[in-house]
Amino acid sequence: MRVTYDPPTDPAAYRFCHRLRARFAETDAMGVVHHAAYLPWLESARVEFLRAAGHPYTEVRQGGQEFPVAELAVRYLRPVRFDDQVAVHLVLAAARGASFEIGYLVEVDGLPRLTAVTRHAVVGPDGRPGRCPAWLAALAVPA
Amino acid sequence: MRVTYDPPTDPAAYRFCHRLRARFAETDAMGVVHHAAYLPWLESARVEFLRAAGHPYTEVRQGGQEFPVAELAVRYLRPVRFDDQVAVHLVLAAARGASFEIGYLVEVDGLPRLTAVTRHAVVGPDGRPGRCPAWLAALAVPA
Amino acid sequence: MRVTYDPPTDPAAYRFCHRLRARFAETDAMGVVHHAAYLPWLESARVEFLRAAGHPYTEVRQGGQEFPVAELAVRYLRPVRFDDQVAVHLVLAAARGASFEIGYLVEVDGLPRLTAVTRHAVVGPDGRPGRCPAWLAALAVPA
Amino acid sequence: MRVTYDPPTDPAAYRFCHRLRARFAETDAMGVVHHAAYLPWLESARVEFLRAAGHPYTEVRQGGQEFPVAELAVRYLRPVRFDDQVAVHLVLAAARGASFEIGYLVEVDGLPRLTAVTRHAVVGPDGRPGRCPAWLAALAVPA
Repeated sequence: MRVTYDPPTDPAAYRFCHRLRARFAETDAMGVVHHAAYLPWLESARVEFLRAAGHPYTEVRQGGQEFPVAELAVRYLRPVRFDDQVAVHLVLAAARGASFEIGYLVEVDGLPRLTAVTRHAVVGPDGRPGRCPAWLAALAVPA
Repeated sequence: MRVTYDPPTDPAAYRFCHRLRARFAETDAMGVVHHAAYLPWLESARVEFLRAAGHPYTEVRQGGQEFPVAELAVRYLRPVRFDDQVAVHLVLAAARGASFEIGYLVEVDGLPRLTAVTRHAVVGPDGRPGRCPAWLAALAVPA
Repeated sequence: MRVTYDPPTDPAAYRFCHRLRARFAETDAMGVVHHAAYLPWLESARVEFLRAAGHPYTEVRQGGQEFPVAELAVRYLRPVRFDDQVAVHLVLAAARGASFEIGYLVEVDGLPRLTAVTRHAVVGPDGRPGRCPAWLAALAVPA
Repeated sequence: MRVTYDPPTDPAAYRFCHRLRARFAETDAMGVVHHAAYLPWLESARVEFLRAAGHPYTEVRQGGQEFPVAELAVRYLRPVRFDDQVAVHLVLAAARGASFEIGYLVEVDGLPRLTAVTRHAVVGPDGRPGRCPAWLAALAVPA
């Protein structure tokens, strides 16, 4: 893994928050949210973070760039249940060269449920590695 | 609804069968397969049916056609559980003009779990309605 | 199908509205939302409708009742795309005996994308058919 | 992360293989399999691995144990496309105390697409940490 960020469980370490409800469809036969169902939540948080930064992902894509997930690391700490009100905290932890890292804390009622990091490639119109846009690099929090 | 086929619970009424295992990820907090998780099973059965007919859906798409779902009707009869060995029976019930209908019976251990019908549009390279390919129409079972 | 409600494309026919964003994870290789991904949206709209009626589904379930989907009918009219702002309009169309029907209109920018009906069984703590709660029957719109 | 295993891209390092087809429902608007859709594949591979070892997961669960995912690490190397014939290679990399690690290589046509590791907790009937069953520990490959 080339992921370098170690996501803390303190919400104060994050710079953006996306809120949602856990769907019934996202639960499994253990009665809690399935471990794969969290990934679209992290993705939605990224999409809202980019929108709030003035660069909606639809515009990024229309401009010929995509940010596919290159690496993913998740620590599942406590379950989330159907109908829980979830906060997905997010920080752009690093952005350099052709990739960037985002850290996440998912919590309910102030209790951490998981932490995660995604590393994203920057891919240009030709499918080749591109460079992080300057506006994105500027949003990264110094380590 | 323009769907006309009434899918029976007798497997003998069907012409193709696709088998699979119910995944844990497909269950929900009621302990059974979530009602939305069956739809990809029907889709996989269609894909295998087209392959068996000598027209893999990847080739259909490369040829510029797509068969998007235009209508869907499902009757949920009994639950399916994690790890159940599932049979998806399928019949091309009608194919005329710019659409076709497929009927399905999903059963486990000989007990019907759901029946369904999908009506599909035939869409050409320009996104406009096309006509059912002759090879497809030839596979339809007379009513 | 025992579904009787024919869901109109006029939002004025509905009594409740749930809003959401189409997620990237919900799209497929045709570039639009996959036909199965709408079902959790309908489910979320039901959950919010019950909450707004003062009977959160978590409480219904704690009280020993469940409302599993017994039938489903969907007409796909136009695609929804990633990041679209979606309105799911809902009406409790009928509630009698041991089942009830809900109608849906999904629209984006005032253009209908799909209509749907779900029929739900009322199941009691013993897994046996129950009767529609009086509070639910009272929410049904006369035909 | 407490995950210690570094999953190689050489299939020879793995001890079990589960094969499947990429479903259309698993693709996204980038035209390839969505990064979250691989997780149920890894889960299915685990389920088949346990079955092949003579301990189907349904029996493990009936015996009061569950193996929830505690940590997950994925490296996405190349995309998988609709209808690709996928091999999920798996190895039980470590099993000690109350958790175990599984490594995965997902490949198509001999080309690696992703590597992953999951760390699982062993949870007993009371929801408390249990110990790895001896039969499971015996399947672990020495580092």
